[in-house]
Amino acid sequence: MSGTTYSVAELEARIGAIFRGVGMNGVQAGAMARVLTAGERDHCKSHGVYRIEGTLRTVKAGKVNPQAMPVLAPDDGSALVRVDAQGGFANAAFELALPALAARADKLGMAAMVINDCTHLAALWPEVEAVTAHGLAAMVMCPSYATVAPTGGTEPLLGTNPFAFGWPRADADPYVFDFATSVAARGEVELHRRAGKELPEGWALDAEGRPTTDPEAALAGAMLPFGGHKGSAISTMIELLSGIMIGDLTSPEVLDYLGSTTLAPRHGELILAFSPRAFARGRDGDPFARAEVLFGAILGQGARLPSQRRFRARAEAAAQGITLSAGEVAMLDRFLEQGLAAV
Amino acid sequence: MSGTTYSVAELEARIGAIFRGVGMNGVQAGAMARVLTAGERDHCKSHGVYRIEGTLRTVKAGKVNPQAMPVLAPDDGSALVRVDAQGGFANAAFELALPALAARADKLGMAAMVINDCTHLAALWPEVEAVTAHGLAAMVMCPSYATVAPTGGTEPLLGTNPFAFGWPRADADPYVFDFATSVAARGEVELHRRAGKELPEGWALDAEGRPTTDPEAALAGAMLPFGGHKGSAISTMIELLSGIMIGDLTSPEVLDYLGSTTLAPRHGELILAFSPRAFARGRDGDPFARAEVLFGAILGQGARLPSQRRFRARAEAAAQGITLSAGEVAMLDRFLEQGLAAV
Repeated sequence: MSGTTYSVAELEARIGAIFRGVGMNGVQAGAMARVLTAGERDHCKSHGVYRIEGTLRTVKAGKVNPQAMPVLAPDDGSALVRVDAQGGFANAAFELALPALAARADKLGMAAMVINDCTHLAALWPEVEAVTAHGLAAMVMCPSYATVAPTGGTEPLLGTNPFAFGWPRADADPYVFDFATSVAARGEVELHRRAGKELPEGWALDAEGRPTTDPEAALAGAMLPFGGHKGSAISTMIELLSGIMIGDLTSPEVLDYLGSTTLAPRHGELILAFSPRAFARGRDGDPFARAEVLFGAILGQGARLPSQRRFRARAEAAAQGITLSAGEVAMLDRFLEQGLAAV
Repeated sequence: MSGTTYSVAELEARIGAIFRGVGMNGVQAGAMARVLTAGERDHCKSHGVYRIEGTLRTVKAGKVNPQAMPVLAPDDGSALVRVDAQGGFANAAFELALPALAARADKLGMAAMVINDCTHLAALWPEVEAVTAHGLAAMVMCPSYATVAPTGGTEPLLGTNPFAFGWPRADADPYVFDFATSVAARGEVELHRRAGKELPEGWALDAEGRPTTDPEAALAGAMLPFGGHKGSAISTMIELLSGIMIGDLTSPEVLDYLGSTTLAPRHGELILAFSPRAFARGRDGDPFARAEVLFGAILGQGARLPSQRRFRARAEAAAQGITLSAGEVAMLDRFLEQGLAAV
């Protein structure tokens, strides 16, 4: 296979240089380089170097502040840790506020990080994992663009609204899931379109609100939530808690603001952290040891834990580096040389 | 239609008398009468008078403490409100701890009620609604018995693990959903069996872990989670947060403890309460007004809000009373006269 192999640190440095080259400050460039490198490292290709272009396009469109310095609100004694991304990327704000979230959850048993006024284009699992590294369970959610019809509806209203969760494990990678509450990611519909393949039944509606298996018609119409009315309800909950409750944009408002789904969405994010030690205090049994019994029973049936594939890819990347295709390397070179002119 | 029509208060009094007649104290009998009457009133027949028999059976088996007086732990300044059900029904413990949960969520922005050592057989929506009545959003979950195989697995491990959510509305019934994370409730499989009907594909596995549409084989095997691996992940999260984290039984442990799925399960419950006013403080827009825009858009597409049917039934019951069939009336009479000898 032609291509170039980088160490994780090398790839991160290279992506960071691209971002600094287009005027992102160190806080923004560093956070985004870390999270996109993590995606590539874990073979989560849809959230790896592929996302550099969208990041640059969003900078070019003036829809994100590349110089933003996120601001952490002072501790008000509540369970809420508020961080204002100042129009920058969510990840820089998250990194700033994480120690405060962990301290607050340790003190109160649970706490919430509210990120406002951020641009969001990364997966949620890097944040979930970062919370679990503090010995805390995490539940993370955010809206997206309006591209999904509620079950029984006809038009895009909800976002693909990801829902993610993590549980810390002492001697293993954390238990982590992170998925779109739409039946499929929009990128998967696009891949079907490029391949000239029909969509499975139940994925999408056309512009008239009728079920369709034509990817072109689906992209002009609406995707559907996973799991029928249950997934639709969870997606609505995500709009309420991580859009409206935190005083930030809902998925239809995001689409109005950007006028496009080709730019990274602007909205808020909600990160809940729970201290299993605090919750289990005074009760029999160590919660972490008991969780291993559950995980063992799942694996013992031949079922997988979510993220197992990602962790395997991560171990491979640590040992053998990350190999990018010649096309991907050329893309990185072009971004490094031409900056925003390349997008 | 032959049958008898009761007012909501009359039916509640009648059910309460049955429960007091078998030795339940006022706290336990009152809470259980209220919640089962609410189920019947809302035409949620699977959680109405039908559940009296299971309640009595569980009392008779000595698996619940009919005289339990739940104990609320003193405020420790954290976001956790702990209530020990003392082996009684969850609902009595919930009623005791609700004012503390609301006060703590108002003060800290969010709070959790942990119910331990309870017997659980009611729907979650009555509790969700009770939290929303305090102007708070609610997320509620609990384990169940091990009757559901994880996606990719072959044997019962997870429970039907309900997940419920509510959002308060000023001039309307709250937004509430409450559903099993299995693709169907176990009762629905049983109804197919009685009707001699095949199950839809994807509902269940047989005792050898193979997909089946035979309800008999499914009852001897395992049900499946809703929404494939996503539902399976959410169900696993529910075991972790509302079983293991709170130091209470997981679904396989519940089944071990009871040795049967014919008795009401013993486990804990987790109720999260969020103050939209606290979360939205300092941000533009009233969260409750903004939520109405979202609900309006859902309804405007011809989609339903979850629980709409329940609220319609409730309004009908308030106006016209609750009509029980002759068989149901005879059942109530039998329970009232014979007490535990009737089950």
